[in-house]
Amino acid sequence: MARTSSLSGFTEWLPEERLVELHLLDTLREVFERHGFASLESRAVETVETLLQKGEIDKEIYAISRMQDDQASARDARLALHFDLTVPFARYVVDNAGYLRFPFRRYQIQKVWRGERPQDGRYREFTQADVDIVGDGALPFRADVELAVVMATALEALRIGDFRMRINNRKLSEGFYRLLGLDDSAAVMRAIDKLEKIGPQKVTEELQTQAGADVEQARRALALAEIRTAGTEFLHQARALAADLDGNSALFEEGLSELSEVMEQMERRVPGRAQADLSIARGLDYYTGTVYETVLIGHEDLGSICSGGRYESLASKGSRTFPGVGLSIGVTRLVSRLLAVQQLRADRSVPTVVYLALRDEESWPQAQDVAEILRARGISAEVALTAEKLGKQIRHADRRGIPFVWFTDASGAHEVKDIRSGEQVPADPHTWQPPTEDLAPAIIADGPASAEPSAD
Amino acid sequence: MARTSSLSGFTEWLPEERLVELHLLDTLREVFERHGFASLESRAVETVETLLQKGEIDKEIYAISRMQDDQASARDARLALHFDLTVPFARYVVDNAGYLRFPFRRYQIQKVWRGERPQDGRYREFTQADVDIVGDGALPFRADVELAVVMATALEALRIGDFRMRINNRKLSEGFYRLLGLDDSAAVMRAIDKLEKIGPQKVTEELQTQAGADVEQARRALALAEIRTAGTEFLHQARALAADLDGNSALFEEGLSELSEVMEQMERRVPGRAQADLSIARGLDYYTGTVYETVLIGHEDLGSICSGGRYESLASKGSRTFPGVGLSIGVTRLVSRLLAVQQLRADRSVPTVVYLALRDEESWPQAQDVAEILRARGISAEVALTAEKLGKQIRHADRRGIPFVWFTDASGAHEVKDIRSGEQVPADPHTWQPPTEDLAPAIIADGPASAEPSAD
Repeated sequence: MARTSSLSGFTEWLPEERLVELHLLDTLREVFERHGFASLESRAVETVETLLQKGEIDKEIYAISRMQDDQASARDARLALHFDLTVPFARYVVDNAGYLRFPFRRYQIQKVWRGERPQDGRYREFTQADVDIVGDGALPFRADVELAVVMATALEALRIGDFRMRINNRKLSEGFYRLLGLDDSAAVMRAIDKLEKIGPQKVTEELQTQAGADVEQARRALALAEIRTAGTEFLHQARALAADLDGNSALFEEGLSELSEVMEQMERRVPGRAQADLSIARGLDYYTGTVYETVLIGHEDLGSICSGGRYESLASKGSRTFPGVGLSIGVTRLVSRLLAVQQLRADRSVPTVVYLALRDEESWPQAQDVAEILRARGISAEVALTAEKLGKQIRHADRRGIPFVWFTDASGAHEVKDIRSGEQVPADPHTWQPPTEDLAPAIIADGPASAEPSAD
Repeated sequence: MARTSSLSGFTEWLPEERLVELHLLDTLREVFERHGFASLESRAVETVETLLQKGEIDKEIYAISRMQDDQASARDARLALHFDLTVPFARYVVDNAGYLRFPFRRYQIQKVWRGERPQDGRYREFTQADVDIVGDGALPFRADVELAVVMATALEALRIGDFRMRINNRKLSEGFYRLLGLDDSAAVMRAIDKLEKIGPQKVTEELQTQAGADVEQARRALALAEIRTAGTEFLHQARALAADLDGNSALFEEGLSELSEVMEQMERRVPGRAQADLSIARGLDYYTGTVYETVLIGHEDLGSICSGGRYESLASKGSRTFPGVGLSIGVTRLVSRLLAVQQLRADRSVPTVVYLALRDEESWPQAQDVAEILRARGISAEVALTAEKLGKQIRHADRRGIPFVWFTDASGAHEVKDIRSGEQVPADPHTWQPPTEDLAPAIIADGPASAEPSAD
């Protein structure tokens, strides 16, 4: 696409590109609903106070204000556009706790906005697709397992190629650091989080300068982060690293056990898609257990296409807390890449299956009668607005990828032409049936990446 | 609903309410696509300059600005949230004209924002559903006919009760005013537009004081506006009013002819839904021909639930103009009312068909195996997260309206219970099939209004 958007950082799709996005969103919705997740939307607008509760992100926020009526605006709370769907969902749960049933499974597919410099493929407006399970007071750990399986199942259904969900558990990491004698877990994780960006040498230095580690502690912390295995092989490697360490290993063991359960069920239900990756930390500080990131194989430069984790207190209302686990797909960046490499494309730009040509201007109502018969049978039909030369009408349909053109002559006899083959046959609108695969625009997956998990 | 929203003017639905909204949106989408309309979304953000092109609406606009980095913000164009979908669509057409095929049919379902005082059921954030047909240089009049039929078909499919699409044509009104000798058509229409609000007496006064009409001119202008007929009966009444007037009647006749064609096709295709109402003017000044408003019978106080019209120049790019015709449904206000009067409701709050109970904590993976078999067969299934007492698990499903609970015993034998009837029978996950009507949440229409057109 040589198109440039007229406002930097704000992408808009052409109709045929929108069909690809819509197909992905429909697929996600179908998978989420098949697993019992309810649809939800939250308002796009939050108070600035709500948005800032979770940390230092104010420079990314778009504030909104009424253009006129300044006095009234001053009376209003300071408002801003949401920058993700997690913070609004937490606020929604608190607002509506009395009307919801817990554990509450919801999916939410909406635009979010970030006032960032639109560089490096960053968007100022983009669509996220989130799934969360939230409990009232408590949420069993196996919600973490369920969520990973649901999302991996959804990603498989998208036919976007192979992907790897990289999973860790903060209890495991933090428990190990404590055994090591490193008490500032946050500082350790901040350093470890940079492993892919700055490499092991610099991480080692940072562990020593920022997290108070000695050479051996830094070596071991780094060694833990370098564990990446399929299935539960990570267990033996992590335990070996901790074998000679004294102290309370309860948190470490709890993390090992949780991660094992996630990995076992992932191997059983979506084999080849999960990797235990003990370097995953996730920047946001409210995660407390399982953390997830996902790379699209062959597109590692995109960064994580789907991330999230467990938070012991997603939200709270007085003494009542709502623990949750969530995963979020960055849809716009994903669609943008899949379109750019032509891995997914739509075979037409409109939903139309049959284009009804006009033999003369007066035949429009008759053509609409025929179209109505087809539509009532679930066949998308569009009638030409003017009786141009037939060749021109056929070309107009062809250019938009509409597969069939319909002709009705003055005697009321019908013929339908398959534009692709050129074949034209007599047809009855009450019984003629296009091939099932022509009933909706097809989304063709023909990129280089295989949909099967690669052996690695 | 006794709930109040935590931010005035911003409504959020509960899961069971969202299902009603989703049902309406899905139905609209299905009807629009069946008629060949392509899905489109535009960015939520426009430059203030774009938004102000069409008139004086700046006090309703929400401006956006990056909260920090003031210098960078100053360099950015002044940005604001869109307040409808017509202006953004016009801008989109100009931006992408080289990539679109005309006539271009699109539907667009998105949130819009208005910085209004949230009084009288006005929303600051609400969803609109628009359909437009836009041409390049020219657009045949019958696009106006097609659009009215498509939208009336969609409104019928919504099962929201009886409605009346009130249709006029500005050429008809303006042509008549000219015949009358009233040249300031805009002033006449502004007065006539207030007929329902201020009554005929005050409109007569305003025609005299604001539009330069004498007593007889005012009487006739008002008399035209009072014509409301089914079918094409308006023709005789309007012509009778103009019978003794000299002058060029070409515009008047063109308007009569166009409105007749719309009414004839409406009577033929969606009988009982259209009314020729010669008082309809529509405030926005860019309409140039057909204008539409729609009242929901029994809910006239809602105002028009679906409005639009023909614009000879929706957009222009140099000397190239793009005429269009569009209709827009205010979805949020409609959903809000239908929920408030319980005319539409969902029979459950989740998509789940089968809730798989746990006999003990260890049986969770086995229950997930069963759930996967059901899901693969298109049956939405959810597994309990904890092995609470069975009665409690059943109640948890029942409260959310899930119709079936599934039990698997230690020997692997399955039973399924219909919570509504209490009937419990042996079942095989590979073959058991719930009734088709249970496969998705049902949206029940049981309000006072009949879905059939009322005789009036």
